[in-house]
Amino acid sequence: MVKRTPPMKKLDIGDESVAVHHLLGGKLGTFSKVPVKTSHDLSIAYTPGVAKVSQVVAADPSRAFDLTLKKNALAVISDGSKVLGLGNLGAYGAIPVMEGKAVLFKELGGIDAFPICLLTQDSKEIISIIRNISPVFGAINLEDFVAPKCFEIEAALQDLGIPVFHDDQHGTAVVVYAGLWNASKVVGKEFASLRVCINGAGAAGNAIARMLKGIGVPPGFPSVKEVILCDSKGIVDRSRADLDPAKKELLAFSNSAHMRGGLREAVMGMDVFIGVSVAGALNPEWIGSMGKNPVIFALANPVPEIMPDVAKGAGAKVVATGRSDFPNQTNNALAFPGIFRGAMDAHAVRITEGMNMAAALALAGMVDSPSTDQILPSLSDPRVAKVVASAVKKQAEAEGVARR
Amino acid sequence: MVKRTPPMKKLDIGDESVAVHHLLGGKLGTFSKVPVKTSHDLSIAYTPGVAKVSQVVAADPSRAFDLTLKKNALAVISDGSKVLGLGNLGAYGAIPVMEGKAVLFKELGGIDAFPICLLTQDSKEIISIIRNISPVFGAINLEDFVAPKCFEIEAALQDLGIPVFHDDQHGTAVVVYAGLWNASKVVGKEFASLRVCINGAGAAGNAIARMLKGIGVPPGFPSVKEVILCDSKGIVDRSRADLDPAKKELLAFSNSAHMRGGLREAVMGMDVFIGVSVAGALNPEWIGSMGKNPVIFALANPVPEIMPDVAKGAGAKVVATGRSDFPNQTNNALAFPGIFRGAMDAHAVRITEGMNMAAALALAGMVDSPSTDQILPSLSDPRVAKVVASAVKKQAEAEGVARR
Repeated sequence: MVKRTPPMKKLDIGDESVAVHHLLGGKLGTFSKVPVKTSHDLSIAYTPGVAKVSQVVAADPSRAFDLTLKKNALAVISDGSKVLGLGNLGAYGAIPVMEGKAVLFKELGGIDAFPICLLTQDSKEIISIIRNISPVFGAINLEDFVAPKCFEIEAALQDLGIPVFHDDQHGTAVVVYAGLWNASKVVGKEFASLRVCINGAGAAGNAIARMLKGIGVPPGFPSVKEVILCDSKGIVDRSRADLDPAKKELLAFSNSAHMRGGLREAVMGMDVFIGVSVAGALNPEWIGSMGKNPVIFALANPVPEIMPDVAKGAGAKVVATGRSDFPNQTNNALAFPGIFRGAMDAHAVRITEGMNMAAALALAGMVDSPSTDQILPSLSDPRVAKVVASAVKKQAEAEGVARR
Repeated sequence: MVKRTPPMKKLDIGDESVAVHHLLGGKLGTFSKVPVKTSHDLSIAYTPGVAKVSQVVAADPSRAFDLTLKKNALAVISDGSKVLGLGNLGAYGAIPVMEGKAVLFKELGGIDAFPICLLTQDSKEIISIIRNISPVFGAINLEDFVAPKCFEIEAALQDLGIPVFHDDQHGTAVVVYAGLWNASKVVGKEFASLRVCINGAGAAGNAIARMLKGIGVPPGFPSVKEVILCDSKGIVDRSRADLDPAKKELLAFSNSAHMRGGLREAVMGMDVFIGVSVAGALNPEWIGSMGKNPVIFALANPVPEIMPDVAKGAGAKVVATGRSDFPNQTNNALAFPGIFRGAMDAHAVRITEGMNMAAALALAGMVDSPSTDQILPSLSDPRVAKVVASAVKKQAEAEGVARR
């Protein structure tokens, strides 16, 4: 009998990832910086020597920043209420993503990050837990908390004395701002003249709108002319009775013309479309109604609001997505490692809008000659985190938010 | 002029420890098991591949034990209410100790331990926080919680599905049991005939008493004849009106003769003194009133209840302390790395008294010929954690506490 080789089955990326996770038993480990082989080693790392270290830190908790892991430790915290594009997977489903994020912090920013996934999804309880576990951490990255509770949680923790930053908001906004800064050069328009439609008014859409309009930003940083947001019900406008408080706050600086309607109406005459929403949300036929040389950020993952070739075919001049298999990958990993590295190096007690803005402009500045296919530096460029960190640290020092 | 070299100042161990901690910026770091250099790397460790891993774990949370860091991650948790012998230093003062403990877990047990220090000292809140942050951890070591709240906290968390173990209780008890097992051979007495006085009725004293008397232990493990406990007010007896519920529970199996008085009365005629109390608590003159060839465990740190030479001079046959500069160092680090390693390898849902007992007997069995100066293996013996882990795993399997 002739033996038959069974046909090779192509492993999809998800199955491959599961196999790697199983093989390694997770992606993150801890290591000791000190030996514990001899009794002298033990006397230094643990008792009796450590008693003195504990007394010093107890008397002055700020010494935890130079005598303990707090100096370089960061918590990646989630309640799993909005994991990637997958929705509310809860604490257990969130672990692989938070662990992956911790790996990115370590590999790209040199930060000792550790994931914490919370069983509760109650905002008040989440705030209390994060406050209570904060002593060992020098910074906290909030991740995949659904809007609007993400705003409440982040705001409540700004007095912790360490950076507390919701990456789905600000990390996304920083990279979009940087990309749009360079895209405006490519299409030959003044940044300050841009009219921008954002589809999605959750964590990311809210933060992008604020940053582009310069809300909470120190004077001197450029902002766009106009922003209009849509959510799943249509244009965010004062005529709507269903807006939550976070969306109502958007009315103060968006949609000044009080437009009503859906996304189709919202994109008309706009220079820029930014999608932080769902696959296929942007109908290619609507692109023709936008301003000249439209810029499209289609950031839904893994399937964007419109595919790049379709958008180009419909008249888009610059198209960015979240994907690595198309040009202009707009990925938070360009921002968060450097932002936290810079904030921690500066001993910043929080991350300000000015620091985010400095990060965005530093990121944009890394592209020497922006073109339709290159408005952002590459994720694989090892300089990115260093350049961002340096700009963020400088801004933190200029704003005087460093710990004394 | 003649230059004079200033006299060398001898650095004490505490100052040396502070200097090392400052130089290194803490003792613990994290590392990634996966590269994130290429876009394929990112697709495996993070999006889009990780989405599948998250979906698998969300659908069956037990998969976190093979697909995430939970497989080998342990939290060392404290509220700083009783740090070493230093008292209530709070969360910040606890960090150097918990970080040191995490280092010991890693170096001795190969466990990816991470410290968590809690700002709250309220039992109910502590229980709720630990439950809520438990998803990423495969085991929890409670540390330096003051009695009696340590009992309540540990008991409330036994349903978490992962080992939750208060080392100040059980780790100490395991090592004392092991040492006493061998000491009984040295002094030529049957273990089952021993009458034991324990000075200290907090976390450690309580657990030692229970273990020596076989409370909660499966049949077949040896126990001593009698235990009597003292606290700072004297002998724990039913005549006392000031006993908290944890101390009242001790009456069921200790001080069956209803002795009253202080430590002086308590040690009379006893074979063994075990001090888990304060420096100098044992008056050398009282040793003469004990049984023949008395055994002394003077475990207060860093200064014991009685110095070994003084105890020997007063007639003690075997003396053990917590210190590395005397024989018979009785240190929890002989127990906890192996106990957790074995429990995690067995996929145990909790650590039972039988598993503690197996650890103690394995530890004792490592000393081929016990002598006055060697009743326990050395902390620097690299076999210790492996031998303990193997015995604990076997016992867990025999008791059927493994996760399915």
